[in-house]
Amino acid sequence: MLTDAQRIAWLRLVRSDNVGPATFRQLLNRFASAEAALEALPSLLKRTGKPLRITSQAAAEDEIAGLSRYGARLVASGEPDYPDLLKFIPAAPPLVTMAGGANLDWQRTVGIVGARNASAAGIKMTRMLAGDLGERGYTVVSGLARGIDTAAHKATLNTGTIAVLAGGFDKIYPDENIPLAHDILDNGGALLTEMPLGWEPRARDFPRRNRLVSGLSLGIVVVEAAKRSGSLITARLALEQNRDVFAVPGSPLDPRAEGGNALIQQGARLVICAEDIIETLGSADPARNALFDRDWEPDLIPEAQPPSDDDRSRLLAALGPTPVEVDELVRQSGLSASAMQMLLLELDLAGQIEWSSGQLVALKY
Amino acid sequence: MLTDAQRIAWLRLVRSDNVGPATFRQLLNRFASAEAALEALPSLLKRTGKPLRITSQAAAEDEIAGLSRYGARLVASGEPDYPDLLKFIPAAPPLVTMAGGANLDWQRTVGIVGARNASAAGIKMTRMLAGDLGERGYTVVSGLARGIDTAAHKATLNTGTIAVLAGGFDKIYPDENIPLAHDILDNGGALLTEMPLGWEPRARDFPRRNRLVSGLSLGIVVVEAAKRSGSLITARLALEQNRDVFAVPGSPLDPRAEGGNALIQQGARLVICAEDIIETLGSADPARNALFDRDWEPDLIPEAQPPSDDDRSRLLAALGPTPVEVDELVRQSGLSASAMQMLLLELDLAGQIEWSSGQLVALKY
Repeated sequence: MLTDAQRIAWLRLVRSDNVGPATFRQLLNRFASAEAALEALPSLLKRTGKPLRITSQAAAEDEIAGLSRYGARLVASGEPDYPDLLKFIPAAPPLVTMAGGANLDWQRTVGIVGARNASAAGIKMTRMLAGDLGERGYTVVSGLARGIDTAAHKATLNTGTIAVLAGGFDKIYPDENIPLAHDILDNGGALLTEMPLGWEPRARDFPRRNRLVSGLSLGIVVVEAAKRSGSLITARLALEQNRDVFAVPGSPLDPRAEGGNALIQQGARLVICAEDIIETLGSADPARNALFDRDWEPDLIPEAQPPSDDDRSRLLAALGPTPVEVDELVRQSGLSASAMQMLLLELDLAGQIEWSSGQLVALKY
Repeated sequence: MLTDAQRIAWLRLVRSDNVGPATFRQLLNRFASAEAALEALPSLLKRTGKPLRITSQAAAEDEIAGLSRYGARLVASGEPDYPDLLKFIPAAPPLVTMAGGANLDWQRTVGIVGARNASAAGIKMTRMLAGDLGERGYTVVSGLARGIDTAAHKATLNTGTIAVLAGGFDKIYPDENIPLAHDILDNGGALLTEMPLGWEPRARDFPRRNRLVSGLSLGIVVVEAAKRSGSLITARLALEQNRDVFAVPGSPLDPRAEGGNALIQQGARLVICAEDIIETLGSADPARNALFDRDWEPDLIPEAQPPSDDDRSRLLAALGPTPVEVDELVRQSGLSASAMQMLLLELDLAGQIEWSSGQLVALKY
């Protein structure tokens, strides 16, 4: 468990500009603690030459106070309440805001996603699948959107459901589902987000949220999804996270079945009933169990010499728009691991590079 | 090409009691020709002690004359007109009755099967798939039944279609499809059956016919099929024949989608459009090409001594209700291959044994 001071430091760091999950992890690897990283940030930023907003102590304290009014709390990776399944996804959020869910089973979970403009048949199918999964002891995860998400949560109010938000706790979207969010909490379910209090969700926050829906789940089920829909993004993210992907089939003449049918053609398991899901998830999967072998411990690299301008040029020359592994960069540039880490941090904070899957790095254009 | 006399002998043998495709093949293996087998039958039957009707020369000539009035002809395995794909299925019919189809492509073929009580969506889907397959140069094979079969034939009248009948040429079922049968012939398509002229199709003749629908096809597509339907039998037979199986998905809430969805769960390829089928069939499949390596030549075993009653007892003791290979029976009973062949022929003609997949033999109970 973090102390209050540590939690505030984590929150300040997480909420500062250009500090995503990968950068946060790098900062902790370099400076061993969020407090030390916060102290080092100003001098790091001076080297990058770019202005960067560091979240103040007061702003962090305000958010924590605000959250408590919503019955929500901040939970850090490594703390007992942090969902195990979420811990090991690429770019896992260092901090999540959670409310409720104390008695939920966070390890026997299935995500259900699908169209907002779902058909009556899609809603019925979702109710059946979610209801049966709930009765068989599975917690159902979804995104509190209209359509399939709403049906999934409603069918599992009594058995346990987790809603992942794309914005802050005070910015539940869509408005019409605010009562459903209250129902979820009143029935022992959970709300969860990685976004700050007050954050109004924008279009690009939904795919980001979707990675948490799949990350919290052993497998995800796509009920109705058009081509190029958010549900298909969730399915892709689930595969990257080594999670099972299930899809409900439909007539090729039904545009809402296009996404699910395409997923099945690509290898997703065709789902007729909850038993199809339980059977697959129930069979031992060493790859999935191995997820729990890692832990959130800083991977400290002691700082030797601050990197030189020449080092910086060599790294920039080695980087391009194609994501590469850091080890590969070390080999190509001839830089020390320590100099590499510091330079990547600088470039990251300056917004010049981006991480994919938390491990590959590329120049931003 | 057979001579007229040979063709009549083949027909007499094929149409005699208890002479199925496997028995026919055995008789040819033993006696080298249908004429010699016909001559030997009376003494063989005397040994079995069971009466058996041998089709007369006159009856065979009558059938041939009757067929010519329908524009139909008898084609024997090994003759140039006999469909190549059909030649190598287990228990391939030695003789088929065919009309039309002279200019069809009999090697680029897709079978389409499905529910008789098809939905409007199922009919539309069939029209689309069959029409597109036809335009891409594939001949479409089906069973002239109501529903999906009818839609498949109608959509491919102009590009080429083959209808396989469960009864005789003069007993087209259902009656309402007699005009469609004429349309098929008028447009260069083909009708085909292995059943005698005058044969009224019974329930058990339909699964038997289905093995020819799949046998004539590189792959079969199941469009709408309930659980335990004839279409699923066709799919199983297609797998036994080493043919590809495709299925159109549907909502799990639609009973007509149960069969197709179950097939996909078992490994059939999910089909959205004709391209999905063409892509799979177009990729080289050595297993399928190897089908064309065998040929219909008698595998003669010279007769040494007629088998004794003791030999017969030893074979009956070795046989049971579980189908076994003939080689295994030879090993277990210690009989010579020649005695084994003759005894199996006797038991077969006496209706005491049955063959599965043309290679395994079991006692009938």
